[in-house]
Amino acid sequence: MTTLRYSATDPDLDLLYARLADRSLQPLWEMTGLLTAEPRVRGVPFRWSGADLRELGNAAGELVPVDRGGDRRVLACCNPGLDGAPYAVSTLWAAVQYLRGHEIAPAHRHTPAALRFVVEGSGVWTLVDGDPLQMGAGDLVLTPSWTFHQHHNPGAEPMVWMDVLDLPVVAALDAVFFETGPSAEPDTRTAARSTSEQWFGGGPGLVPVDGPLLPPRHSPLLAYRWADTDRALASLVATSGTGHATLRYSDPVRGGDVMPTMRCEIARVLPGTTTDAVRQTGGRVCCVLHGTGHVTIGDQQFAVSPGDILAVPSWTPWSVAATTEIDLFSTSDAPVLEALGLMRAENLTTGQRTIGARS
Amino acid sequence: MTTLRYSATDPDLDLLYARLADRSLQPLWEMTGLLTAEPRVRGVPFRWSGADLRELGNAAGELVPVDRGGDRRVLACCNPGLDGAPYAVSTLWAAVQYLRGHEIAPAHRHTPAALRFVVEGSGVWTLVDGDPLQMGAGDLVLTPSWTFHQHHNPGAEPMVWMDVLDLPVVAALDAVFFETGPSAEPDTRTAARSTSEQWFGGGPGLVPVDGPLLPPRHSPLLAYRWADTDRALASLVATSGTGHATLRYSDPVRGGDVMPTMRCEIARVLPGTTTDAVRQTGGRVCCVLHGTGHVTIGDQQFAVSPGDILAVPSWTPWSVAATTEIDLFSTSDAPVLEALGLMRAENLTTGQRTIGARS
Amino acid sequence: MTTLRYSATDPDLDLLYARLADRSLQPLWEMTGLLTAEPRVRGVPFRWSGADLRELGNAAGELVPVDRGGDRRVLACCNPGLDGAPYAVSTLWAAVQYLRGHEIAPAHRHTPAALRFVVEGSGVWTLVDGDPLQMGAGDLVLTPSWTFHQHHNPGAEPMVWMDVLDLPVVAALDAVFFETGPSAEPDTRTAARSTSEQWFGGGPGLVPVDGPLLPPRHSPLLAYRWADTDRALASLVATSGTGHATLRYSDPVRGGDVMPTMRCEIARVLPGTTTDAVRQTGGRVCCVLHGTGHVTIGDQQFAVSPGDILAVPSWTPWSVAATTEIDLFSTSDAPVLEALGLMRAENLTTGQRTIGARS
Amino acid sequence: MTTLRYSATDPDLDLLYARLADRSLQPLWEMTGLLTAEPRVRGVPFRWSGADLRELGNAAGELVPVDRGGDRRVLACCNPGLDGAPYAVSTLWAAVQYLRGHEIAPAHRHTPAALRFVVEGSGVWTLVDGDPLQMGAGDLVLTPSWTFHQHHNPGAEPMVWMDVLDLPVVAALDAVFFETGPSAEPDTRTAARSTSEQWFGGGPGLVPVDGPLLPPRHSPLLAYRWADTDRALASLVATSGTGHATLRYSDPVRGGDVMPTMRCEIARVLPGTTTDAVRQTGGRVCCVLHGTGHVTIGDQQFAVSPGDILAVPSWTPWSVAATTEIDLFSTSDAPVLEALGLMRAENLTTGQRTIGARS
Repeated sequence: MTTLRYSATDPDLDLLYARLADRSLQPLWEMTGLLTAEPRVRGVPFRWSGADLRELGNAAGELVPVDRGGDRRVLACCNPGLDGAPYAVSTLWAAVQYLRGHEIAPAHRHTPAALRFVVEGSGVWTLVDGDPLQMGAGDLVLTPSWTFHQHHNPGAEPMVWMDVLDLPVVAALDAVFFETGPSAEPDTRTAARSTSEQWFGGGPGLVPVDGPLLPPRHSPLLAYRWADTDRALASLVATSGTGHATLRYSDPVRGGDVMPTMRCEIARVLPGTTTDAVRQTGGRVCCVLHGTGHVTIGDQQFAVSPGDILAVPSWTPWSVAATTEIDLFSTSDAPVLEALGLMRAENLTTGQRTIGARS
Repeated sequence: MTTLRYSATDPDLDLLYARLADRSLQPLWEMTGLLTAEPRVRGVPFRWSGADLRELGNAAGELVPVDRGGDRRVLACCNPGLDGAPYAVSTLWAAVQYLRGHEIAPAHRHTPAALRFVVEGSGVWTLVDGDPLQMGAGDLVLTPSWTFHQHHNPGAEPMVWMDVLDLPVVAALDAVFFETGPSAEPDTRTAARSTSEQWFGGGPGLVPVDGPLLPPRHSPLLAYRWADTDRALASLVATSGTGHATLRYSDPVRGGDVMPTMRCEIARVLPGTTTDAVRQTGGRVCCVLHGTGHVTIGDQQFAVSPGDILAVPSWTPWSVAATTEIDLFSTSDAPVLEALGLMRAENLTTGQRTIGARS
Repeated sequence: MTTLRYSATDPDLDLLYARLADRSLQPLWEMTGLLTAEPRVRGVPFRWSGADLRELGNAAGELVPVDRGGDRRVLACCNPGLDGAPYAVSTLWAAVQYLRGHEIAPAHRHTPAALRFVVEGSGVWTLVDGDPLQMGAGDLVLTPSWTFHQHHNPGAEPMVWMDVLDLPVVAALDAVFFETGPSAEPDTRTAARSTSEQWFGGGPGLVPVDGPLLPPRHSPLLAYRWADTDRALASLVATSGTGHATLRYSDPVRGGDVMPTMRCEIARVLPGTTTDAVRQTGGRVCCVLHGTGHVTIGDQQFAVSPGDILAVPSWTPWSVAATTEIDLFSTSDAPVLEALGLMRAENLTTGQRTIGARS
Repeated sequence: MTTLRYSATDPDLDLLYARLADRSLQPLWEMTGLLTAEPRVRGVPFRWSGADLRELGNAAGELVPVDRGGDRRVLACCNPGLDGAPYAVSTLWAAVQYLRGHEIAPAHRHTPAALRFVVEGSGVWTLVDGDPLQMGAGDLVLTPSWTFHQHHNPGAEPMVWMDVLDLPVVAALDAVFFETGPSAEPDTRTAARSTSEQWFGGGPGLVPVDGPLLPPRHSPLLAYRWADTDRALASLVATSGTGHATLRYSDPVRGGDVMPTMRCEIARVLPGTTTDAVRQTGGRVCCVLHGTGHVTIGDQQFAVSPGDILAVPSWTPWSVAATTEIDLFSTSDAPVLEALGLMRAENLTTGQRTIGARS
């Protein structure tokens, strides 16, 4: 246990500094960097190659059983600016998870919320509080805070997907709780369609009158299917007139973000189109589902292909330029920034700025 | 201008009553029926026959041009309990509207909100603030408060549909405003898919990030298509385990009812199934889309067929028994009752009661 | 049970009209006055004289026991435009209630919500769900929907006050329920300060962390005391720079109106000052607490004195001109209009208009 | 820029680890402490002595001009468990600020929100966006996110007070912005009562109808005066029946916490009374305004006197035992935990637990 002991050439002042340190106090006037004109962001723009992630996932699959630490075979994306912390940006964990045929990642739950986004493959079911959700390419699957979740792969083929968690935020708030699953026996049920989707996936604006109680803090719809998303993106991009369009995944019953700490969006960018350069407070993790082109983040330009994961740090401008049609999934902590009145956004192409905006 | 003059046999009291009347005052202790143990409902259970409505709509089409009073060829359902007021229940207007081939019902707007539900036919477009919404069987189309709306029939076949309005509520609040359309020329555009649907009809939980501003008080999605509704009903009824299920139409972006004064729901009841007898404060208008069976309202039982319109007065128990599979659309003023803290509901089959519930 | 039978000179049309009436239908094109450019308001501007109300209240006190019909000795203000309906404006009941010394108006409850505003005198306690609230000049006391309420006068002096209820709205929605009190024995407790005030009347922005559960639909603070109101008005009017200022009574814990159907406000107008002419949808009832001057409502000007009750019908401009310092309490149904998206307001002095405003 | 390079005895695995580190990836299964059964809290229970804070503040006043770094003469409380970070608990900055007679701490603004709580003395005005707020013993003064604030001491006596900021949270979200004041000239106005209080400090449930626009994200009332707080505490504690009571400071117009990131509360504990041992997720900083006794935090017991500042880390039980009547102000990050669905609370005396509670 320690407190910084500042020093001064003036002996009286130096003595004061010694007494302050002795009392676990520090002099503000000696500190620097506390209140900066703009955010002092340590995370850096970064790209993890989809090809690397697949290959290293395969290698881990060969070498590491799923039941080692954490019961998950996961490679965490570590932003090089964060001094070794296993976070893709300062507020988001991103990783690839790899499950071989016939493997089970047993049920547990934790206060950090998670989502799964699938770039390719299929065959794994994620059970959320016992409801089996099939996972396929382009699908978004939610495992909200404190819901039991398990992954099992009844087939022979391995499968890989991206995990995103709000772990850095929950850890910073000293609010991490964890429990192993309610039963020792894994639940290996599958279902063509989850109960969640049967109840809450009816269609735009169609919600059940009776049915299971709504969960208090997250979307009752736990899987957003690519077929729906693809169709909606096609409709939007045809209407937008800009060559690109972005969908937000939302709670179909109450509106708003799917979970209180993470916003999920997916953009379609037509070939030859470049999106506006924008920035906002809070971090973002992107994953390329389809297409090739370039993503510019700050002063760096990354060539992108399917499976690539990208880190967009807070207040860093970014834009997407498509060579072939790009579908780009992304997760940000925007709901956190908005809830706390800390969201700022700027479109550097148009010059438009907003402070304290709720979307 | 008048005030009731009560009378009394006691001459002093009678003189007081005269003086009260002279001052536009009335003695509470002489009034009866103001505060009743349960609502004193004047509207009665009633059924308007779909066959009648079609036939009389046709006859009106022959005899009456669309541009007579109100620019609408509309037959209003008048509950026999309401002393000639043209309302289906005390708080809802219901009617059938008939538009012949090549006719136009020109644009206007009013503070009473309206919805259109189509039982059969197609071919008419309703323009809402200039956005052309095609109307087909099973579709729900909204024309919210103070939006300009026009109907035009570019084809040769006539078409009939049901209108429901919150007119009695708006009139009781002395808040009716009306304006004719912004231009003398009708707008006869059509579109395979409305802009509203292109933006906001993406799928369950899929909403545009940019795009037109959300309207402040009603769903931005103005048409709910039968194909979606049918699929969602099939999924729900398969899950419910009771042989029936009910969907609520909702705002796909913010959740909640489609308009602040009217709740829209549609129930599917499988053959041989009877729904629980339920009642709630506020009125309801039902319309049979498909199927046959019986609807019991209070102590009356009505055989029903497609196109029938039914009045369920406030606090009157009702249930549906299906002979063939029934799809029953209904509109209630439940959002009004809930907003004002006046909703009570009771399931007479299970005995469950709620007071002041928000749904 | 009846429906209007329209007639026509054309025999075919007349036959159609007969058939429509036979089927409880009416032709819209024959109706007039349904959708008017502006609200067709039947209530008229009106003033009930405070002197008359006191005198007639006294006379009723002499002649009528409190336990006749309704257990309340109440004179209802009947707007002469409303065809004998006992309402001050189309959406609000207003009345004076008179309780002699040692009398009790026994406990009951009803879904219509009520408030009591005291112009002069003191000595009566209103019990709301058993909590004794003392009533004194300038105090506002709430008896929200479905709370048991009783008045008792332990002293020798009679007392009179104004009641306002949302009865017309609740009746129009067929949602009136009524129950007599939970016990045959009246509860004649008094208290220097109600439990409600002890918990929730702490001061601006000071709310208890633990304590009784908040009522779901109305302010937990049931009495607003004149000493607080007077001080707040003095502060506001000194700051406003216009010679007048208006306070809204609100829920001190959650903000918003005191009850979901009625907004309560009090204005102070300094001598020689005239307020802007304003109008809004929905009705308003005013009560002069202090001062003299003129209130202009529509095209009528009323000289006012303490105790006068005034009716401001929907969409009717009104303003206050003070000769001596006026304190004017008023209740409107603005929360209803706002909840349903039907509020419009206009300041005729400045020309500012708002549609669909929430305040 | 670096990523942890894990090592393994198995050469194939070790090679994988090298390749992972080379690609800025880490193997989850080698990590420990990420997902713990309960929060792994680094901050420790701690007390900073009020006597020390006063004496060291005085010494700093002698030795350090106010215009050195940051324009504030502030001693930051540094929790010994946080490795030298200048935070009282992991999510809150707490400090004492010292301003000598005739000194000015010039205007600036920053996205971290601050509050000032005064234990003793008076004579300083804090200007918030130009509105002069007098500071006296027992007062709470808010300087919300991104409001310009300045302190000036027109008198001769020095003054000291406690500052609490949400700086750790805002910094963790990479959302710190800072600006110096809008003018080079300090604004040395004073006022007996701030404009904020004139408008919004009227009384419980009394809010202005017109007046300045409400700030979007914080209470419009910027000062909570001890006279009000003391009276409200006296009323509450007399009613509670437990010998202690707690008030929450709230937005008097909209309800809810005074700022979106910090909850402020004040407890009164009567002599001989001990509060229940409670814990919740998120940190808390307490400040003793009056009285003596003991505060138990985790397994440590601290004797307390006026001016003491205490750190209650996340999920650490704490209780207060009063020898003389204690008034204890405290600030927590509970609004953050609640907004994000991460609030858990437990009363260890009664055994009651809540998960995900909103208050």
